[in-house]
Amino acid sequence: MTRRLAFLGPRGTNAEEAALRYDPSAELVPFPGISAVAAAVDSGMADGGVVPIENSLEGAVTETLDVLIHDAKLAICIELVLPIEHFLLAKPGLKAADVRRVYSHPQALAQCRGFIERCFPKAEMVAALSTAAAVEEMMQRDDSAAVGNKRAAEIYGAEVLARDIQERRGNVTRFVVLAANDHPPTGSDKTSLAFAFAVEDRPGLLVGALEEFSSRGINLSKIESRPSGDRLGTYIFLADVDGHRTDPALAEALERIQEQCSYFRILGSYPRYQKSG
Amino acid sequence: MTRRLAFLGPRGTNAEEAALRYDPSAELVPFPGISAVAAAVDSGMADGGVVPIENSLEGAVTETLDVLIHDAKLAICIELVLPIEHFLLAKPGLKAADVRRVYSHPQALAQCRGFIERCFPKAEMVAALSTAAAVEEMMQRDDSAAVGNKRAAEIYGAEVLARDIQERRGNVTRFVVLAANDHPPTGSDKTSLAFAFAVEDRPGLLVGALEEFSSRGINLSKIESRPSGDRLGTYIFLADVDGHRTDPALAEALERIQEQCSYFRILGSYPRYQKSG
Repeated sequence: MTRRLAFLGPRGTNAEEAALRYDPSAELVPFPGISAVAAAVDSGMADGGVVPIENSLEGAVTETLDVLIHDAKLAICIELVLPIEHFLLAKPGLKAADVRRVYSHPQALAQCRGFIERCFPKAEMVAALSTAAAVEEMMQRDDSAAVGNKRAAEIYGAEVLARDIQERRGNVTRFVVLAANDHPPTGSDKTSLAFAFAVEDRPGLLVGALEEFSSRGINLSKIESRPSGDRLGTYIFLADVDGHRTDPALAEALERIQEQCSYFRILGSYPRYQKSG
Repeated sequence: MTRRLAFLGPRGTNAEEAALRYDPSAELVPFPGISAVAAAVDSGMADGGVVPIENSLEGAVTETLDVLIHDAKLAICIELVLPIEHFLLAKPGLKAADVRRVYSHPQALAQCRGFIERCFPKAEMVAALSTAAAVEEMMQRDDSAAVGNKRAAEIYGAEVLARDIQERRGNVTRFVVLAANDHPPTGSDKTSLAFAFAVEDRPGLLVGALEEFSSRGINLSKIESRPSGDRLGTYIFLADVDGHRTDPALAEALERIQEQCSYFRILGSYPRYQKSG
């Protein structure tokens, strides 16, 4: 049976491209927001949901973290890493000299500001709700370009005026596939968890928890604190560690940490992303 | 002499409101981006610069963290915490029934999506580069509303159709004032630092550093990892601890940590924010 994958739409986003790389034979269904993707998986409408979790320039995608923290029915079953390349797109035939406006999501505009200001000093930057929406909007005008990805160019029939126009190299986004269950052990796994303490502001609580990993030789590859939403200063910690939650040493460390926490949730164990090619 | 404060513009942003609360007698100068504010302070054009560093719903403002990590001439000299209230604004006289479009920055639209969909089910949401730009744009149209703050309503002469329309309570933003020097000790201080290790993926490096605080009874109030920008998986850690960098115990802990790091920078010691009123 064909797998049905929900993704953060509209068509032409980087999430769609990540979903295609993950499973080219899946049926891909766009949803208008990260929590809508989560709801599609929760309700069985989709077998998995592809959402961004972290960008190397912009940091964490907080909406995805919040879904993982609060939605106990979902787990991470796969991570995918996609290089993000911004293209300057326009209607076929439009000359660069005729570009008066450049559309995109504010984040994409910010990442390409240097290029746009150098090459189109008089163009006005115009915000759109997504890079895909920017391309769609641009295609209705005769004086505009848009910053978007290659897939949006294909879908909307746009021409590539310039490629790889972002300021900094190494712009990659990590996506995760949300599903009802995480992944069985493969021998090269990662485990993500979220936890919080009831007593705030007591020195050593976080360090004590992290020592459960280091004392067992378990590498902590990432730690992040996220405001709990009630008020600044009360944090939920998100950590990635090496190994699968069923590995005996990691299982023991997780159990010890859970005992010290007021909130504790394993977000999933899944294969560590391996760069292919 | 009047203090000159740069802030993240345009006029009518929350950064301007934070700057006004910090020093009502200062001369306020808007700059178009966070790095432009930093450059204004670096070059002596302004005595201080007010930029957002963290929002309780959205998380860290990564551009500000990057400025602090990379610009060795700047320090945090004050933190300010501002409650964020979103208002639905329109041209005076416009009836709610005539609203066909709602303008704002995509983040503000996302935070108010529930209200907009409930009360204006047929209105189109339109992206703008900032909430202030959204209000300015909306004022030129007879069928639109915008999500913005109270100050933007005053500046652009807009009317408040609805107040406090965001989904979740407790939306606060922490701002910092960047300056050439941090703050002398007051007895109730915080210190922010950034650090990274040369050897990656070795268990216990981060925990070892944090133990320098916990073993001295110093509370760690925040920890965050930020992709270094080169590639995902290489992180710079950002931490907030209690105390001033000149306190003997904290000074000793910072020295020990610096010895273990390939990158180390004290971002500043400054008074802990006290809620007034």
